[in-house]
Amino acid sequence: MESEAPQVHPFKHRSSLPQDLRRESRHRVRIERVSPSIDRGRYPVKRIVEEPLDIEADIIADGHEPLRVLLEVREPGERDWQGHAMFPGGNDLWIGQLVFRREGMAEFRISAWIDEVVHWQDSLEKKYRAGQREDLEVELLEGADLIRRHLSRVQDAEAAQKLVHWLSLWAGPGDLDLRVGMALDSDRGQEAAAFPDARFVTVSGLYLVHVERERALRGAWYEFFPRSSGTVAGIHGTLEDAARRLPEIAAMGFDVVYLPPIHPIGRSFRKGPNNTPNADGEVPGSPWAIGSEEGGHTAIDPRLGTMGDFEDFILAARALDMEVAMDLAFQCSPDHPYVQKHPEWFRRRPDGSIHYAENPPKKYQDIYPFDFLTEDWEALWEELGRVVLFWISKGVRIFRVDNPHTKPFPFWEWLMMEVRNVDPGVLFLAEAFTRPKVMYHLAHIGFSQSYTYFTWRNTKTEIEAYMTELATPPVREFFRPNLWPNTPDILHEYLQKGGPPAFLARLVLAATLSASYGIYGPAFEWCDNRPLREGSEEYLDSEKYEVRHWRPDPVHSLAPVIARINTIRRTHGALGWNHTLRFHPVTNEALIAYSKTGAAPDDWILVVVNLDPFSAQEGWLDFTPPGGEAMEVHDLMDDARYTWPPGPRYIRLDPADPARVPFHVFRRVG
Amino acid sequence: MESEAPQVHPFKHRSSLPQDLRRESRHRVRIERVSPSIDRGRYPVKRIVEEPLDIEADIIADGHEPLRVLLEVREPGERDWQGHAMFPGGNDLWIGQLVFRREGMAEFRISAWIDEVVHWQDSLEKKYRAGQREDLEVELLEGADLIRRHLSRVQDAEAAQKLVHWLSLWAGPGDLDLRVGMALDSDRGQEAAAFPDARFVTVSGLYLVHVERERALRGAWYEFFPRSSGTVAGIHGTLEDAARRLPEIAAMGFDVVYLPPIHPIGRSFRKGPNNTPNADGEVPGSPWAIGSEEGGHTAIDPRLGTMGDFEDFILAARALDMEVAMDLAFQCSPDHPYVQKHPEWFRRRPDGSIHYAENPPKKYQDIYPFDFLTEDWEALWEELGRVVLFWISKGVRIFRVDNPHTKPFPFWEWLMMEVRNVDPGVLFLAEAFTRPKVMYHLAHIGFSQSYTYFTWRNTKTEIEAYMTELATPPVREFFRPNLWPNTPDILHEYLQKGGPPAFLARLVLAATLSASYGIYGPAFEWCDNRPLREGSEEYLDSEKYEVRHWRPDPVHSLAPVIARINTIRRTHGALGWNHTLRFHPVTNEALIAYSKTGAAPDDWILVVVNLDPFSAQEGWLDFTPPGGEAMEVHDLMDDARYTWPPGPRYIRLDPADPARVPFHVFRRVG
Repeated sequence: MESEAPQVHPFKHRSSLPQDLRRESRHRVRIERVSPSIDRGRYPVKRIVEEPLDIEADIIADGHEPLRVLLEVREPGERDWQGHAMFPGGNDLWIGQLVFRREGMAEFRISAWIDEVVHWQDSLEKKYRAGQREDLEVELLEGADLIRRHLSRVQDAEAAQKLVHWLSLWAGPGDLDLRVGMALDSDRGQEAAAFPDARFVTVSGLYLVHVERERALRGAWYEFFPRSSGTVAGIHGTLEDAARRLPEIAAMGFDVVYLPPIHPIGRSFRKGPNNTPNADGEVPGSPWAIGSEEGGHTAIDPRLGTMGDFEDFILAARALDMEVAMDLAFQCSPDHPYVQKHPEWFRRRPDGSIHYAENPPKKYQDIYPFDFLTEDWEALWEELGRVVLFWISKGVRIFRVDNPHTKPFPFWEWLMMEVRNVDPGVLFLAEAFTRPKVMYHLAHIGFSQSYTYFTWRNTKTEIEAYMTELATPPVREFFRPNLWPNTPDILHEYLQKGGPPAFLARLVLAATLSASYGIYGPAFEWCDNRPLREGSEEYLDSEKYEVRHWRPDPVHSLAPVIARINTIRRTHGALGWNHTLRFHPVTNEALIAYSKTGAAPDDWILVVVNLDPFSAQEGWLDFTPPGGEAMEVHDLMDDARYTWPPGPRYIRLDPADPARVPFHVFRRVG
Repeated sequence: MESEAPQVHPFKHRSSLPQDLRRESRHRVRIERVSPSIDRGRYPVKRIVEEPLDIEADIIADGHEPLRVLLEVREPGERDWQGHAMFPGGNDLWIGQLVFRREGMAEFRISAWIDEVVHWQDSLEKKYRAGQREDLEVELLEGADLIRRHLSRVQDAEAAQKLVHWLSLWAGPGDLDLRVGMALDSDRGQEAAAFPDARFVTVSGLYLVHVERERALRGAWYEFFPRSSGTVAGIHGTLEDAARRLPEIAAMGFDVVYLPPIHPIGRSFRKGPNNTPNADGEVPGSPWAIGSEEGGHTAIDPRLGTMGDFEDFILAARALDMEVAMDLAFQCSPDHPYVQKHPEWFRRRPDGSIHYAENPPKKYQDIYPFDFLTEDWEALWEELGRVVLFWISKGVRIFRVDNPHTKPFPFWEWLMMEVRNVDPGVLFLAEAFTRPKVMYHLAHIGFSQSYTYFTWRNTKTEIEAYMTELATPPVREFFRPNLWPNTPDILHEYLQKGGPPAFLARLVLAATLSASYGIYGPAFEWCDNRPLREGSEEYLDSEKYEVRHWRPDPVHSLAPVIARINTIRRTHGALGWNHTLRFHPVTNEALIAYSKTGAAPDDWILVVVNLDPFSAQEGWLDFTPPGGEAMEVHDLMDDARYTWPPGPRYIRLDPADPARVPFHVFRRVG
């Protein structure tokens, strides 16, 4: 008998119940493994405006009643949730899709409940079909109770009206078969079921989606040093000179012009040509040694011009449909005004000197790192935030961040969040060449894009493995690659040894493997491949330490090929995505082949590249188009057209052929 | 100039900063992907006492300074954290291990910080070796400051004393080389580094580990119906009769005796033999139709005996080193006292009747399900909790839960937590044959063990795939299988058709693939394989609906084989684990081979089974022992010994051979 149940073990531990468990005691549905999500929603996944986000979750309940699942989204700046139905995908997986219209931090969550209305209709129908007529009246009574309870939660008058009318058709007396038929109306049932008892509705945690503008995902970047833009050898170029280069850069089809730092350069310990230490003050110095008596991170190096010149530069780029990306190098030369004004922002040694950068036994006495954990950290962080906002006020909306992995993660997370509260369209590219998990974490905390290991991935096996990792979940959900064949810091041996055919191969790989890519010019288009010394990845006579004078040489320039490739990128949407990348087998390790698709089924690009810059390579490409039939392709580089029968096709690419580039970029015609 | 920085964009959005981000602004270290964890710590992983738990996490920081990582554990009921060092495992992965001594819910977390002391020592050493003597005095000064700051946080007088002494050796004046040598003492450095500035220490979230007693992982179960234990055909057996069977069950080597419900059985709509509906009241009824005027879930069916008989039964089992598992079937017959006393705990229809169980058009009028979401849910849940505590007070510490997947997850989560607050040694076995994600979720929320799909996995491919899934993370971390070749509900076609050789194959598979297994006897050991009808998995003349009388037949009984296998299980620790299971190729789809290892290297068992109950099967087993040399093995079933040269070995197993079982259980001798 129940009375025997002992009172000796009361549930005195109620207080130990997690708050959530108590609040959710009557939530029969559990929502698990919401995907994509990073660290269970702690960090956002990334999308651009209009890019679909497919969402999945395991959603289960006890028993066997049907579930109703709602994917709710709150676009940036909105207060209300918009609901979209999720659908079962088998094995308790539910799927839904979101598309975001606005930049900023969107949120989604999932709500799920037992669909009592559909359950009742199912049961009524089965009993009706089984001829259990004796049960039908009470089933209808029960259903009427159920619908009335749902009705009591309907706010919208029109919807309520509709349900009241439905109820009147079968809840009263009348012909039983007719009334059962009316009660089984599945449209009305669906409508009523949208108003469950909130006490029994399970709501998932919040998941974030960082929605950015298109340039966060796709764009062609061109980096150059304004001070080397002068037309007279040996004379320091200006922003005006740099602006004069813009039409030529635009003609090559670039979207973003990125300038190394343009601020006053410190004099103390200034580096001379080829990184010679302690050169005299007459050398121009490294643009990354920021700050002198002429100003710091919000000033323009007077040798480059004035703030007005910079604003003109931005306007000139904008007139050519290009954006200017600024270098954000948060470090100081010893001559930076901050050093005098805010010595508390730097680490001081017991002898009173300030800690310069070092990697013992190497010393970088021309650079003082900030102490981001200083007691005065809030003032420091806010000042650096103001630097970013300053340049935003001048028209800059893309920042290429120098070595973000040597500054604390919380600083960046805070900075980018604050800046995007002011302007959600501001993009940050992480120049982090460091360990993989650190690079990915920078993407978690808000960097729109990142440099990659692409420069060091030169064989087919390396390229396929690395690009597949980047194009596939989970990485694809938060990390957007920006591929650079060269940078002022990296002239890879492959380019040094391979010359123009190597430059062409790396160009087309960067431009078609990734929606974002960039080159450092004119070093790239003029195929500068002289290293500082054998075994070094540094350029000889690097622009980092001196003013260079580039002599135009139209005959040997890669500019026409670059222009063609950028035109193809703009014309063919498939190249604007990363996640549709698929590699295809070729019977030759020097030949790599891959395709991408866009939104439309005929938006399809197939690229085949000879990775060997020295020899012609041939092989059989195993690519069968969807459907398996013959297809006609069009090589967008040389306008050749081929009809491909089903089965493998022969490919031969010769880097020595002066009439052709050592790669194909095919689109499908037929 | 900094003064140009605009004041027009103040950071007015500070309030939008997540609380965590603000609090953790100076935490340079990030701790990610802590593993194993379920839903980022929402649910516990499972271990038994003394079973090691290997923990991994990605731990990163900006910059290149060394990290120090502490794995902190709080055993059940303790207040203080115990710290254990974690070690780098490459690619920013850190690893550590915990072993728990006490049953209950343990917690762990990870703390990590920049190791400033080791960083300073590294730097000092590099400068010393590079001969940068001009820097050494200031380095020592800086180090002394650092150590003094660490010292200020040391509570333990002895530890402080040691560090003060160390400091005195090099912080004052004296020979520079000697002082540098002293300062580089890495033991003292390590000791000092254990006292970082708490403001800069990153602490992960909490992760749970549910630590249970050994029986949660391993045990051999025997299920039988006490009412069929009588010695006279046609007479309802009693608990006293059942107790008389215990020595024989113990002799077969079982650890747990599990009884179907022993409560009074309802009379309304009582089921007759072979599940005939609405039999008259003279049939014994189904034990799962719980409750009559004689009592409910805390009463004993008077036909079985008294509460005293049950307590005696428990004592008799305990005397034989066995435990009694009770059936927990939370449902009522229409005659259950709850129905009168607490009609509000059931769902009522508009006509005043109570909702019986149904799956339209099928009706189960002998069963009333509880309405777990009733307005009075707290009283209902507490009453059901009291039922469990009642039986615990009678000595039951294992519950086999009937159909847990048809009651709300929060109910079970709450119930098991409350019960384990009273007695952490209480085990729950989920009898859930349902969809995979639901089965796994029941394990998440606290079931110690679960029934599985094993019964329906009969081919080599099926068994290998399923058991690998169960033995491998993530499943292995939370789901403990209990394999049953048969149950009163399931007589698989394989047993129906295959007879005794099939019973033997399924027996050895269950007993050696999983640390926990069980049989339903005497149906199993006496090879009852008569189905209700062709195509049904129900037994003919099922004990669920009638009293059976089992006539002992020692000649045809499998009891001796069962006893042998259970002895092997007890002797060889390897069979007490699931996660060391590895399958080995055999050149015959009917022969399956697998091994398990225990803690000691020579604790190794290899099992080979002929899955074909009709024909002899032969093939080559591809098993190479560690080291690759020849080995001597001992078949624990027939005591044969073989010396195996390196390379594949021939296996032949004949189900028709009366002298041998159709499987091998080898241990390694040499």
